[in-house]
Amino acid sequence: MGSICWGCLGVNKHTVFGEGDMKNFEGIHPTALIGDGVMLGRNVTVGPHTVIYDNVYIGDDSVIGAHVILGEPCADFYGADANYSNRILEIGSGARIRSGSVLYAGSSFGDGLETGHRVTIREGTRAGKNFRVGTLSDIQGHCHIGDYVRLHSNVHVGHKSRIGNFVWIFPYVVLTNDPHPPSEFQVGVNIEDFAVIATMSVILPGVSIGKDALVGAGSVVNRNVEAESVVVGNPAKKVATVRDIKSKKDGGSVYPWRYHFDRGMPWQGIGYDAWVQKNA
Amino acid sequence: MGSICWGCLGVNKHTVFGEGDMKNFEGIHPTALIGDGVMLGRNVTVGPHTVIYDNVYIGDDSVIGAHVILGEPCADFYGADANYSNRILEIGSGARIRSGSVLYAGSSFGDGLETGHRVTIREGTRAGKNFRVGTLSDIQGHCHIGDYVRLHSNVHVGHKSRIGNFVWIFPYVVLTNDPHPPSEFQVGVNIEDFAVIATMSVILPGVSIGKDALVGAGSVVNRNVEAESVVVGNPAKKVATVRDIKSKKDGGSVYPWRYHFDRGMPWQGIGYDAWVQKNA
Amino acid sequence: MGSICWGCLGVNKHTVFGEGDMKNFEGIHPTALIGDGVMLGRNVTVGPHTVIYDNVYIGDDSVIGAHVILGEPCADFYGADANYSNRILEIGSGARIRSGSVLYAGSSFGDGLETGHRVTIREGTRAGKNFRVGTLSDIQGHCHIGDYVRLHSNVHVGHKSRIGNFVWIFPYVVLTNDPHPPSEFQVGVNIEDFAVIATMSVILPGVSIGKDALVGAGSVVNRNVEAESVVVGNPAKKVATVRDIKSKKDGGSVYPWRYHFDRGMPWQGIGYDAWVQKNA
Repeated sequence: MGSICWGCLGVNKHTVFGEGDMKNFEGIHPTALIGDGVMLGRNVTVGPHTVIYDNVYIGDDSVIGAHVILGEPCADFYGADANYSNRILEIGSGARIRSGSVLYAGSSFGDGLETGHRVTIREGTRAGKNFRVGTLSDIQGHCHIGDYVRLHSNVHVGHKSRIGNFVWIFPYVVLTNDPHPPSEFQVGVNIEDFAVIATMSVILPGVSIGKDALVGAGSVVNRNVEAESVVVGNPAKKVATVRDIKSKKDGGSVYPWRYHFDRGMPWQGIGYDAWVQKNA
Repeated sequence: MGSICWGCLGVNKHTVFGEGDMKNFEGIHPTALIGDGVMLGRNVTVGPHTVIYDNVYIGDDSVIGAHVILGEPCADFYGADANYSNRILEIGSGARIRSGSVLYAGSSFGDGLETGHRVTIREGTRAGKNFRVGTLSDIQGHCHIGDYVRLHSNVHVGHKSRIGNFVWIFPYVVLTNDPHPPSEFQVGVNIEDFAVIATMSVILPGVSIGKDALVGAGSVVNRNVEAESVVVGNPAKKVATVRDIKSKKDGGSVYPWRYHFDRGMPWQGIGYDAWVQKNA
Repeated sequence: MGSICWGCLGVNKHTVFGEGDMKNFEGIHPTALIGDGVMLGRNVTVGPHTVIYDNVYIGDDSVIGAHVILGEPCADFYGADANYSNRILEIGSGARIRSGSVLYAGSSFGDGLETGHRVTIREGTRAGKNFRVGTLSDIQGHCHIGDYVRLHSNVHVGHKSRIGNFVWIFPYVVLTNDPHPPSEFQVGVNIEDFAVIATMSVILPGVSIGKDALVGAGSVVNRNVEAESVVVGNPAKKVATVRDIKSKKDGGSVYPWRYHFDRGMPWQGIGYDAWVQKNA
C-alpha cells in the first residue's frame, strides 16, 4: 500500500485545550486525525473522530462534522508502493459537511458546498458553487455538476453524468450509464439547466433531460425529454408542458420554477430576471 | 456558531475502568463524548466514538450503539452566537439505537424506540411508543408518528407526514410533500392506523392512505386510498379489498393483519380483540 | 446483557508506535478497539475508530477501513447474561471492507470480499469468494450468496434470498420475501447464475430469475422469469430474449454477458469457454 496508510494519522498533537478554551473552541477536535499536506483555511472546524487523509484543501469558514472522511484513497492506492501520493481533494470556502460523509481524493468543489449525513462522493467529481447534496446520496465520480445544483436525499449519480446549473433531483432518483450491464461501455445522462427530476425516477443511459423539463415521480425515462416537457410513467411519456401546471395552492403558474422560487438562489429577493440583468 | 461546538465535547473524564470492571461494564465507553445538560437514566450504555451533544435526555435501560450522534444541532446553530442553546432531544426508556444513527436535537420519542444502523431523524419529529425504524431510514422531521409504527430499512419520510398507529412501511418507500417541486408549499401525506405500504412505493403529496389499506410494491399513489382497499401500479389503482387476499401458505385470511400477526404488538399472545377489551 | 458489552473493548494497549513506525505502519490503528477472541491474519490493516467485537476471524492481507464495525452482536445479545458468547464472523483473505460498514456476528465470507462504504450485512449470511457489495447495500441475513456476485450500491437483500454465482444486481433493487406483509411466512427469491437485475427493480416473494436472464430497470417482477428472458415493466413482462439485444456501441451481441465481459472475473484475459475447459 501507499504511504498514506492509516498508521500515519496520529492523534493530532498540535491542539491543546484548556477548559475555558474548549467551551468556545472552533477548530480541530482532539480526536480528529489529520494527514500530511492538509491545508485548512481560516476558521475551519473539524468534528470528533473525523479522518482527513493527505493532500486535502479546505477553504475558509468551513465546518466539517463528526465521523467524516475526507480524501479517501482511490482504488489504485491499495496496490501502490510507499511513494504513492494521495490525489488532491479541493473544497471551497463556506463548506458544511455533515457527519459520516466520505469524500474521495481527486475531486473539486466550489464555494458553498453543503452535504447531508453519510454522503459518498467518489473521485473525478467536479462540482460548481453552492452545490447541496442530501443525506445518503452516492455520487459515483467522473461527473460534472454545475452551480446551485440540489440533490435531495439518497440520489445516485452514475459515472459520466453531466448535470447543468440550478438542477433539482429528488430522493431515490438513479442516473444510470450502462446500456447493457455489465459492460465496459458507459454513456452518461445529461441534465440541462433548471430541470427537475421527481422522486424514485430512473434516467436510462445516454438520455438528455431538457432545460426546464419536469420528470414526474416514479418515472423510467428511456428517451430524451424536450425542454419544458413534463413526462411521467414507466416508460415515461410526455403528458404536458411545464407551463400547463397550476399551483395546488392558488391556481397560479409554478413553472419554470425560477420565476416562482428563490430560496438559496442568487436571485433571492430580487427575482430571476432582475438577477440576470444585474449580471448581464 | 453557538456554544455547543465540538470543542466542548471533551473525552469523558468521569469514567475510570479497572480491568475487571471493564469486562462486565455497562455504561459510557471512555471514547464517547458527552455534552452539557445531558441526562442519562439508570442502566444506560453508550458505545464507543458516540457523540451526545447538549441537552439530550435518555430514559432508563437504554443502549446507544457505537458511532451514534444524538442531539445533532439544527441548521440555525451555524449562524448563532455563543448563547445558543441546543434544543432538547427526549428519548424514552428502553431505547436501542444502533450504530451510526443521527438523531437531531428538537424531537421526542416514547418508550421502546428501536433503530437500525445509520438512521437519520431530524428535528420536529414526535413519535409515540415502540417506534421501530430500520437501517438507513431518513425521517426529514416536522412529522407525527403514532405508537407501534414499523418502518423497515431505507424509508424516506418527508416533512409534514402524519403516520397513525400500528402502521407498517417497507423498504424504499418515499412519503412526499411538495406538489410542484421546488416550491414553498408543502402538503404532507396521511397514513391511517394499520395501513401497510409495500416496498418501493411513492405516496404523492397530500394523499391519505385509509385504515387497514394495503399499497402494493412499486406503486405510485396519486389519489386517496379508501380503508381496506388494495391498490397497485403506476399510477396505483384499486384491485381488491384486503379481505379478498388469501394466504399463499394456507389459503386463509391474512388481512386486516392485526387478527393474524402479533409479534412485538401489545396483543401478543392474547389476540387483538382480547387486547382491545382489556383496555376498554 | 452478555459479556461482550462495549466496556470490554478498551483502547488497544498492545500497539506502540514510534514516529518512524507510524509513517509506514500497516496494522491496527491505535484508536481501533479489538474484542476478545479476535484472530487476524498476517498483514491485516485496521483503520481508525473501527470496532471489532469478540470472535471475529479475518484472513491474511485484508484491509479494514475506518469507522467499521465487525461482529456486531445479534438481537439475542441484548437479553443475554454474562455467559453470552458472540457468534463467529469469518472473513476470508484479501478482504477490503470500506469505512462505516457493519458486519454482524454469525456470517461467513470467502476470500476476496470487497465492500463499499456503510454496507450492512446481518447474521446468517453465507457468501462465496470474490463477493463485492456496494455502498449502502443492506443484506438482511439468513441468505446464500454464490461466488463472484456483484451487488452495486444500495441493494436490499431480504431474508431467505438465494443468489447463485456471477449474478449482477444494480442500485436500488429490492429482493423481497413476505407475500402478505406483515406475516410470519417468508419465501425468499432465487436468482440463478449469470442473471442480471437492473436498477430500481423489485423481485416479489418466491420469484425465480432464470440463468442468464435480464430484468430491465424499474421492473416489478411478480412471476418467474425463464432463462435468457428479458423482462421489463410494472408488472414485468417478457419482451425479448437476451440474445436479441445488440450493443449500442457496435451492434454486436452483448448477452449472455459472460462471453463479452471479463473484468474481475476468473476468465479475465482468456475468455469464458477457455476458463471452463481449464477447470473441466
